[in-house]
Amino acid sequence: MSHWLAPEPQRWDLIVEEALIEDIGTGDISAGCLDPAKSVDWFIEAQGPGIVCGVGIVAYLMEPQGEEDDGQYLEIAIRDGEPVSRGTLIAKGRLAGAKALQCERTALNFLMHLSGVATLTSKFVEKVNGIDVRIADTRKTLPGLRVLQKYAVRCGGGYNHRMGLYDAAMVKDNHILAYGSIGEAVDAVRRSISHMTKIEVECESHEQVREAIAARADVIMLDNMDPFSMREIVSAHKGQAIFEASGGINLDTVRGIAETGVDVISVGALTHSAIAVPFHLEL
Amino acid sequence: MSHWLAPEPQRWDLIVEEALIEDIGTGDISAGCLDPAKSVDWFIEAQGPGIVCGVGIVAYLMEPQGEEDDGQYLEIAIRDGEPVSRGTLIAKGRLAGAKALQCERTALNFLMHLSGVATLTSKFVEKVNGIDVRIADTRKTLPGLRVLQKYAVRCGGGYNHRMGLYDAAMVKDNHILAYGSIGEAVDAVRRSISHMTKIEVECESHEQVREAIAARADVIMLDNMDPFSMREIVSAHKGQAIFEASGGINLDTVRGIAETGVDVISVGALTHSAIAVPFHLEL
Amino acid sequence: MSHWLAPEPQRWDLIVEEALIEDIGTGDISAGCLDPAKSVDWFIEAQGPGIVCGVGIVAYLMEPQGEEDDGQYLEIAIRDGEPVSRGTLIAKGRLAGAKALQCERTALNFLMHLSGVATLTSKFVEKVNGIDVRIADTRKTLPGLRVLQKYAVRCGGGYNHRMGLYDAAMVKDNHILAYGSIGEAVDAVRRSISHMTKIEVECESHEQVREAIAARADVIMLDNMDPFSMREIVSAHKGQAIFEASGGINLDTVRGIAETGVDVISVGALTHSAIAVPFHLEL
Amino acid sequence: MSHWLAPEPQRWDLIVEEALIEDIGTGDISAGCLDPAKSVDWFIEAQGPGIVCGVGIVAYLMEPQGEEDDGQYLEIAIRDGEPVSRGTLIAKGRLAGAKALQCERTALNFLMHLSGVATLTSKFVEKVNGIDVRIADTRKTLPGLRVLQKYAVRCGGGYNHRMGLYDAAMVKDNHILAYGSIGEAVDAVRRSISHMTKIEVECESHEQVREAIAARADVIMLDNMDPFSMREIVSAHKGQAIFEASGGINLDTVRGIAETGVDVISVGALTHSAIAVPFHLEL
Amino acid sequence: MSHWLAPEPQRWDLIVEEALIEDIGTGDISAGCLDPAKSVDWFIEAQGPGIVCGVGIVAYLMEPQGEEDDGQYLEIAIRDGEPVSRGTLIAKGRLAGAKALQCERTALNFLMHLSGVATLTSKFVEKVNGIDVRIADTRKTLPGLRVLQKYAVRCGGGYNHRMGLYDAAMVKDNHILAYGSIGEAVDAVRRSISHMTKIEVECESHEQVREAIAARADVIMLDNMDPFSMREIVSAHKGQAIFEASGGINLDTVRGIAETGVDVISVGALTHSAIAVPFHLEL
Amino acid sequence: MSHWLAPEPQRWDLIVEEALIEDIGTGDISAGCLDPAKSVDWFIEAQGPGIVCGVGIVAYLMEPQGEEDDGQYLEIAIRDGEPVSRGTLIAKGRLAGAKALQCERTALNFLMHLSGVATLTSKFVEKVNGIDVRIADTRKTLPGLRVLQKYAVRCGGGYNHRMGLYDAAMVKDNHILAYGSIGEAVDAVRRSISHMTKIEVECESHEQVREAIAARADVIMLDNMDPFSMREIVSAHKGQAIFEASGGINLDTVRGIAETGVDVISVGALTHSAIAVPFHLEL
Repeated sequence: MSHWLAPEPQRWDLIVEEALIEDIGTGDISAGCLDPAKSVDWFIEAQGPGIVCGVGIVAYLMEPQGEEDDGQYLEIAIRDGEPVSRGTLIAKGRLAGAKALQCERTALNFLMHLSGVATLTSKFVEKVNGIDVRIADTRKTLPGLRVLQKYAVRCGGGYNHRMGLYDAAMVKDNHILAYGSIGEAVDAVRRSISHMTKIEVECESHEQVREAIAARADVIMLDNMDPFSMREIVSAHKGQAIFEASGGINLDTVRGIAETGVDVISVGALTHSAIAVPFHLEL
Repeated sequence: MSHWLAPEPQRWDLIVEEALIEDIGTGDISAGCLDPAKSVDWFIEAQGPGIVCGVGIVAYLMEPQGEEDDGQYLEIAIRDGEPVSRGTLIAKGRLAGAKALQCERTALNFLMHLSGVATLTSKFVEKVNGIDVRIADTRKTLPGLRVLQKYAVRCGGGYNHRMGLYDAAMVKDNHILAYGSIGEAVDAVRRSISHMTKIEVECESHEQVREAIAARADVIMLDNMDPFSMREIVSAHKGQAIFEASGGINLDTVRGIAETGVDVISVGALTHSAIAVPFHLEL
Repeated sequence: MSHWLAPEPQRWDLIVEEALIEDIGTGDISAGCLDPAKSVDWFIEAQGPGIVCGVGIVAYLMEPQGEEDDGQYLEIAIRDGEPVSRGTLIAKGRLAGAKALQCERTALNFLMHLSGVATLTSKFVEKVNGIDVRIADTRKTLPGLRVLQKYAVRCGGGYNHRMGLYDAAMVKDNHILAYGSIGEAVDAVRRSISHMTKIEVECESHEQVREAIAARADVIMLDNMDPFSMREIVSAHKGQAIFEASGGINLDTVRGIAETGVDVISVGALTHSAIAVPFHLEL
Repeated sequence: MSHWLAPEPQRWDLIVEEALIEDIGTGDISAGCLDPAKSVDWFIEAQGPGIVCGVGIVAYLMEPQGEEDDGQYLEIAIRDGEPVSRGTLIAKGRLAGAKALQCERTALNFLMHLSGVATLTSKFVEKVNGIDVRIADTRKTLPGLRVLQKYAVRCGGGYNHRMGLYDAAMVKDNHILAYGSIGEAVDAVRRSISHMTKIEVECESHEQVREAIAARADVIMLDNMDPFSMREIVSAHKGQAIFEASGGINLDTVRGIAETGVDVISVGALTHSAIAVPFHLEL
Repeated sequence: MSHWLAPEPQRWDLIVEEALIEDIGTGDISAGCLDPAKSVDWFIEAQGPGIVCGVGIVAYLMEPQGEEDDGQYLEIAIRDGEPVSRGTLIAKGRLAGAKALQCERTALNFLMHLSGVATLTSKFVEKVNGIDVRIADTRKTLPGLRVLQKYAVRCGGGYNHRMGLYDAAMVKDNHILAYGSIGEAVDAVRRSISHMTKIEVECESHEQVREAIAARADVIMLDNMDPFSMREIVSAHKGQAIFEASGGINLDTVRGIAETGVDVISVGALTHSAIAVPFHLEL
Repeated sequence: MSHWLAPEPQRWDLIVEEALIEDIGTGDISAGCLDPAKSVDWFIEAQGPGIVCGVGIVAYLMEPQGEEDDGQYLEIAIRDGEPVSRGTLIAKGRLAGAKALQCERTALNFLMHLSGVATLTSKFVEKVNGIDVRIADTRKTLPGLRVLQKYAVRCGGGYNHRMGLYDAAMVKDNHILAYGSIGEAVDAVRRSISHMTKIEVECESHEQVREAIAARADVIMLDNMDPFSMREIVSAHKGQAIFEASGGINLDTVRGIAETGVDVISVGALTHSAIAVPFHLEL
């Protein structure tokens, strides 16, 4: 993929190959009567507004591979993270007809969904325009697509939360119950993890926030709190930890929450409820 | 999964195992300080209205496996395809705490998305209530999730279109161009495929429909036509082929299209733009 | 593979790579003392008559890959589906000696078996010369080789039946028992499948055929019927469905069955009992 | 599989699972309208004579797995390597109907082919009855099925040649050319391989045999020699190496070759040209 | 595996299954003539001193699976992380003879290597006894074994550094060169990563350390510094970041470095140069 | 890899790709802020003495792939099996900076470990300088790395023992117990294996050796015997079988054992306890 903002997900080509197999299965039977060597001209354009993401996958799928070229080529007209509107050209080229037909749907399926995630992210980012706060994703991703969705969030101007259960620690109710206090729970987790790993504590009250700060938590999640409480907590402890607001935040409420002074706002909808941006491929 | 409506996708367990690996990666580091043998009680309930889908995946993930049980159990309270509202119990049980924490997010991610697809499908189905027409999906699915999404469409009362490029044939512009006429194109495709496989022809005019019927196409797609034209065509040829309306159909326009008499209405949004139904797991 | 007749199986390269690993395992120990950079000239020719299939696999395996070429080349002398006799040249080239020795057996194993399938198919096709009937394969294929064997059937002039349990429906005894009649069984199956999918009904009597036609079955299998009954049924219902004869048909009986007027004759032996066509590779 | 003769191939279950996926793909669509919980009685019997092989695969596929049994069971009536004739019972049981229908074809496909290999092998073995000679297979196997086919050869009373290029060394023309003499070639190979690995030399004349014996080859292949020459060579050198006859040997010629005194006769047809033994499954 | 200290690596069973296949390949040919149903008693004991690691893998491999038990059992006598000496019993049981022979070598290979890593780690840990410092591993691990080796480090009393390039950020020379200063480089990295991810800066001088602290680096690596410089730096900045000593540290030098006051000492040898602890299995 | 001594392991590229994924995971997050197109110069040199092994893996990983080269190149300065000392150049080149950083650790991890194995092997080989004896490895390898470790042994001047349980047979106590005598056990094994496969018998006394020779064992293992007994046995039976000494042999004892006249000395430590040879990559 292109390299506008952030590192590309590792081995996304494997996901794309799996998607091709999912669609083509035992063979594209409609193409059985066509001359596979015959080339066609094609282009992809947007059919509506949004932020584009997945251009690299389009390039991967629509790249000419044969040596007997027949004028085959590929031209990419835009980079991931850039805005599009109805009619914006994404890419064009000339390719063996059978290959174009077999890759079309897979290319568009990725492009439409990832651009949907980038676009939804960019709407949240616009809403907090001028405020020093990050819009971040969550682990509420679609199975098998997490690395790509999180890349799309970055392309939309957002930031990633942890990638999974393995790259950052979270102290929740059950730890606190098991150890008797936030302080002891955080200590226990810290003793079992790398010195390179951060710890976040889920807090539901100012009292819990105080304990988490005393335990030197790196990040504090203000879980489903009202904006007034959040503002109070952040004012009292700014700089003592990173403060993250979380829980049912939408486009209507996000600016109010940003104004509380939190550092990060995490939004599950970015990855679980994005609407596709329409694109089409024409021959 | 449960068996309410339709055959379950083959080997969906592999997709679920991949999703677990995607989330847990090299290990759930937050759990390193907890006693893995200790059991906890849990339940999952809906946080909003919809049609549930993915209960079998919840069961697969939350099933007790240890012999030293500690009262572990699993109880499923609903079947795929049934309606839920805020507070409806989906499942409950008792499970090793570490396993519950590690499977929670993956189970919910499937449940939220598949229920979203089933719910959106059911809204289209309701809109055409009383009319003898099928709401069908398309190949506009999310990469890697096609068999599960198409199962969710069936759970929502919809029907499947072809699974991929391999199980039904589609005659499009490029075939017609290559062969000179719809008749010759359909014949060429038919000669290259199994006698067990249907042929659909994309038509953009009544004239093309006539040619497709003369060529004994099994299914005729009325592509982005206005309802008036569709009604005229279907009236003239009812029973001579299966008529499918396609192209940008939404909840506002679907009933008008159904009233034209077409047999099938295919809707890409069912699988590319479903909004998640919210569920949560409580310990 | 070449593109003479029909779409190539999707990702057959994966099957070929697996076959190479099966043969070479942890390494070709006999080659340990040879200079891997030294090139040799080679050719493959037929040692007996038949229809060739698998030329594309030979090309895939014997293609020079090194940049330091030493005059390396590959020349394919024939296309899949063409007849060969003792001495017919299939391909020749110049390749690193170690690679030639490591790929030889795998290339020949595919070529011999697939040509065997194509050749047996062509014998059935010749037997029904002049009659408008398809010779078709079945699901009685060798595990792991189905897509390639079905390609070979096409190269031999035959046609494919369904690819597996997923791309066409079959109503058998157990459906009829479960629903009480052929009509109700076909309706039940039709309600659970896509409008893009055909239904075949296995019939053992004229009475059952009448019911299947009334239920609008797409294809009717005349299962192990005598030619006289078949002729009677086909005469009575020509054009109302596709008629397929099936059950223990061999080279001696196939013409008699074709003369009954059936549309398709399916033959398990094409894929479960083909004799290899001999080829050898000489350095 | 059963354990009549020889170690079973490692991880054959993976091959069987792949075969199931090949057949069922995205789902058995004909079963969508049946109650998956309903059990049926089934049995498999032979429809013709032969040596059975693959009973363990039948057992693997048809084993009841549900806890809610409904009288489900599995009974195996025969062991791999035993003779069958028309009507011999192989196995019977009671199983969920959907599972029985989904595994039937795969189970029979393995059983028919592997029994075909065992049966053809047993015919060669019978032909050399009373002579102290091994009938052995070759590397001319069907791609992906080598370990199973070689197991079937053992079940038919035959023996295995090397499994692939990795477990025994073969000195051929190109080694001899590269080193100038059989003696130097054998020495070079021996220096590059393990002391646990045998070396076979392909010989086309008595002169070459003498050189190979002088080089202490473990096995000497008499390649496409006439029986008279073979007898002469074996008489002269009995016990100095293992002598293997190879090259186009069939059921008519095998006894004459065995009478020359060779230790091993290798036959490619065992695995590349076996005719299926018919079996059927009845519900 | 057992759960003494820390979370087990995710899906280590897959690594163990691969190792079994690596050893057994196409089958254990020495076992072909033995009765596979016959059980044998076995035990594993240490043949030298060390810290044990891998007991869970032994249990996974040596667990009886057949229902026809013949008195089969498995008993684990020790937990990962505990000390052993010559003769210490690790586990014993009764198992099918063929299975015992096939799993023996794989079980011991894991046990010997992982115990080697745990033992070497414990020697470093003992050397710094009484000092508040962590002994940590690095990314200098053996390919394919990282998660298991890092688990072994934890069992030996050590701690993990980052798991790979994906779970923590490192600012090195090339970042500093690209951005002109440590401050700008750290800012650039921080803007591109999650708020849940720590940043370490490699420093080679006190001046660089000052810049890294000013840039709010989470961890500072003192790369190949002499103990005197380290002590000076740590004294000046204790608590402003986590200080990690790295570079060619061995059992002779580790205590001196620990006494400088650093928080973490990372040692590549733990995973790239561990000597196996000897164990044997007796029947 | 290079081709100095022996055939390279089949498909070692798959092991290298897995190792890359193990290290990079979901992406190299430190590289997110760098220009991926910018090239850097690099070289790898030894930091201590040894025998190099793994140069081919370095070449595989550090090879430029982009067409827009920016002066990119790769130059290999040495071949596997050659000696290195502090400062010896292994390879140098120019490569995209992000790729260099992502492949560096993986390349070095292979190079350090495989060179460690080759170096330890070469020390044993030197110890027996002038004596006609092979130093061989065992199955005591690190899981997943066997083919590479055994290649490294060959690069160090050693020889391979069997690759696994599948390519040579071993008669042990349990066979002898099961059959009553070495003679009967060897016969039973021989009847169940290929004529291309050798049999080794583990012997603990001269009496057992006599029986093994009478049974025509190909190789006889003198298991944990004292040198005096070994010398006596070898003197009595030289040439009647291959004699292999095994059991706890180290650099101090190996020459004494070699002087007994055995043909092969197998040493587990070569692969289970090799110390890494240090190399570093500089930009």
